Order: sequence, then C-alpha cells, then structure tokens
Amino acid sequence: MNPTACILVIGNEILSGRTQDVNVQYIARRLSELGITLSEVRIIPDRREIIVTTLCDVRARFDMVFTTGGIGPTHDDITAPCVAEAFGVPWTVHPETFRALEAHFAPGEFNAARQRMATLPQEATPITNSVSIAPGFSIGNVHVLAGVPRIMQAMFDSLAPSLPRGTPVTSRSWYALDLYEGALAAGLSEIQDHHPDLDIGSYPFRRPDGRRGVALVSKGLDRDAVLAAAEATRDLITHLGFTPQEGEPPP
Amino acid sequence: MNPTACILVIGNEILSGRTQDVNVQYIARRLSELGITLSEVRIIPDRREIIVTTLCDVRARFDMVFTTGGIGPTHDDITAPCVAEAFGVPWTVHPETFRALEAHFAPGEFNAARQRMATLPQEATPITNSVSIAPGFSIGNVHVLAGVPRIMQAMFDSLAPSLPRGTPVTSRSWYALDLYEGALAAGLSEIQDHHPDLDIGSYPFRRPDGRRGVALVSKGLDRDAVLAAAEATRDLITHLGFTPQEGEPPP
Repeated sequence: MNPTACILVIGNEILSGRTQDVNVQYIARRLSELGITLSEVRIIPDRREIIVTTLCDVRARFDMVFTTGGIGPTHDDITAPCVAEAFGVPWTVHPETFRALEAHFAPGEFNAARQRMATLPQEATPITNSVSIAPGFSIGNVHVLAGVPRIMQAMFDSLAPSLPRGTPVTSRSWYALDLYEGALAAGLSEIQDHHPDLDIGSYPFRRPDGRRGVALVSKGLDRDAVLAAAEATRDLITHLGFTPQEGEPPP
Repeated sequence: MNPTACILVIGNEILSGRTQDVNVQYIARRLSELGITLSEVRIIPDRREIIVTTLCDVRARFDMVFTTGGIGPTHDDITAPCVAEAFGVPWTVHPETFRALEAHFAPGEFNAARQRMATLPQEATPITNSVSIAPGFSIGNVHVLAGVPRIMQAMFDSLAPSLPRGTPVTSRSWYALDLYEGALAAGLSEIQDHHPDLDIGSYPFRRPDGRRGVALVSKGLDRDAVLAAAEATRDLITHLGFTPQEGEPPP
C-alpha cells in the first residue's frame, strides 16, 4: 500500500473564484511520481476554527497533509498559528529563521509583520527553499507550503527528498478522434473487470477546432498489468473501427 | 446570512494530476453573483463508499451541494447510483429522459451504456441543458453536474434560476506595482479591524516580465462598507509612496 496524502488549500481567494488554483495539479503530479496516493483535496476559507478542525481531521486520516496558502506577513495569513493550535504547541519565534530574515532585510524593514514569518509552531522544521527567504515548515505529518505557485513549487522541491515513498504509478493512454464514450463503454468495462486493481478511465475531449474524441487511460502500481490493459484499450479502439493514437491528446 | 454551498469534485483524473480542474472557479464566481457562499470544496476519487459517505456529510452541513463529474456512460461514472444510495432511494430509469435519449440516438445506438445516463435516483429532477442530451439532476439539496466544463456550465446556467439567493458579494480591488506585503501589513490590518465583517485580502502577484506587486481586495455583503474599505486601501497605497491602480492587475 502506498502512503496516502491530502492537500488542504487554505484561501478565500480560491473559494470566491478570484484565483484559479494551480497548486493541486502540480502537487498531484509530483506525488504520483513519488508513489504517494493523493486521496483527497479540501479547499477551505481563511477561518481559524475551520482550519484547526479540518487539520485535526485530515492529519489523522492520511499519512501526510500538505497545506497551501496563508503563510505571508498579512493579517489574513493565519495558517501557522492554526497549525500550532491543531498540534497543541505554542506559536513561537524560530531563532534561526528570525536571524535569516533579519539579515535579509534592510535596517528598519524587518518589521512586526515580517517577523510573523519567522514565527512557527514549536518543534516545526523550516522548509528553506531557493525562491523565498521566508520558509514553509513541517510538523509531524503536516507540511505547510506557500500559496504563490513559484514559491510553493520551490518548497515542494526542497521537501520531496525527505517524503516517504511508495511505488510510482504507471500510466498509459490511448486516444481516438471521433469516438464517443457510449460506443466503447461495454468493451472498456470488460477491460476493467479483467484488471480490478487498475484504474481504467475514459475521458472525452474536444479540440479547439470542435472535433471530439476520447482518451482511455490505464493506471496502477503493477506496471505489467498497466501495459497489458493499455494494449487492450488500443485493441478496443481498433476493433470499433477507429485509429488508436498513443499518449494524451494534444490540447 | 447567505445560503452556503459545497462543491464535490468527483474524479480520479483531478487527484492524479492528469486534468486541471476549472469547474470550481466557474461555479465559485457564479455563486458569488447569486449571493451564495461557497464554504468548502472537496475533491474525492471515483470510489463508491467515499462518494456516499462524503455526500451524506456535506449535504447535512451546507444548504446546497454541487457535484461535478462521473455522470457519463462508462463504468467509472458512478455518481448517480452513489447519490441514490446516499439518499436511500432506488436508482431507476427516468422515463422522460429515457425517451429523449432514445429519440436522439440512431437505431441500435441507444445501448446499455447510454441507457445508464437515463437512470437517475428516484424522485430526481433532470437538469436539461443546451449542450448535452444527457441531463444532470437535482435531488433534495444536491445538484449533480457533468465534469466536462462546457456541459457543466450549460447545466449550471439551466439550474441557476431555481437556486435560493442571498445578497451578492461586493468586491473592489486596488493594486500597486513594486509594493510588497510586508510593507503594508500593519496598515491593512488596521483597515480590517475597522471593518470586521469584511474580508480584506492581500494577494502578491508577479507579471510575466518579472515585475512584482500586490493587490488589495475588499469584499463583503455591505456594499457601502466595501467601498469605504477599498478607499482606505487606495489611501494606504498612496501613503506608502506607491501609485494605486483600480481593479485586478492584468495577467
């Protein structure tokens, strides 16, 4: 069994529709490469009691939790004190981070707001990274990352080598133009029945020119089984009188 | 108090990183216009027991629930029977939808897989729409929409007039180039303190040319208070020696 993960996206700006989240897809892909199963994502508002309650729930249910958002210097950045509360530890200045930030800013610029970014749950380990001087942090099985995608990605890169790993997912895709799901459903269901441990998915697409088609994706931990299932999806497309093409359809 | 909503995104393809979700942002914006508060989003896999348990949880906690994904004709499209199970009702052929689909397909093409799309929880109301012949459906406070964005949007459009409404959110944004969050945090916190019922958010951005800045967003149900808070954020930017610009920063 691969380790499981949950992403907690913390941010009113996602729930209001102001901002299109792109962090989930990035983390999802990276976890898949590491053999970690992303089991759930939750998007919640910047509200103390909701963040604390949700953190307590998901960190008990999944092997690891990644949060994104809410670790900047402004009043709406409340993730760090909420994580401290969820773990029942003080939210306190982290001396090494404080010194690094102090050295970074010009004299007089390391104000109270910026000092908040050096204030972490006690016993947290900073996630230093190549992009921002203010770190993310890990405590227990919770990894707290920035919301800004470039910074989040740098933090994830820095964190990745220390994460527990499982068997990477193998995935193979075949697609066909002009083929509809309704025509292939019975055959695809048979392939799924032959490979109960794999995820066999069918994803209709529509190209910018309006031409439609469907992609058949075989996915799982057993590489040989995935390759066999993918061959079967290719043969199904051929059998239905369409031309199978390997990979994902171009956007 | 505005009515509350939850979106349940059902789909392995989002959790694996294969597909970038864009439905949450669309629904979020539409709900905001209707005065419905999007309180939570969950992304969960195509797994029967998880879908049923999550549905039972969120439909009790929020005034309405929107699901996206899993209503096509293939074996991995299990949302409809799961909704039936969550409501404790049979999953059964909906005669009117059956006849509409039967009339749509050429003779011999309305196969068992396609007939599944005419099978709904008993007492569900179909959400007919301008794009797909297969409908979404509503049962109780749960609205079941497609995963394909074009179809989902048509279903939402069709559904919107029947949704309960609240007070639409008023939102105003001012931004400044070259300004950093750490410099404005104290002033922004004061503005938030003067308007405890509003959400005052600060969102750093980075243009494609590398130039950075920050947007200050004032949001809430009291229009006059939002306008006053937005003026205060504009004055704060000026006071810090930067040039306020109205609206959201261009991408």
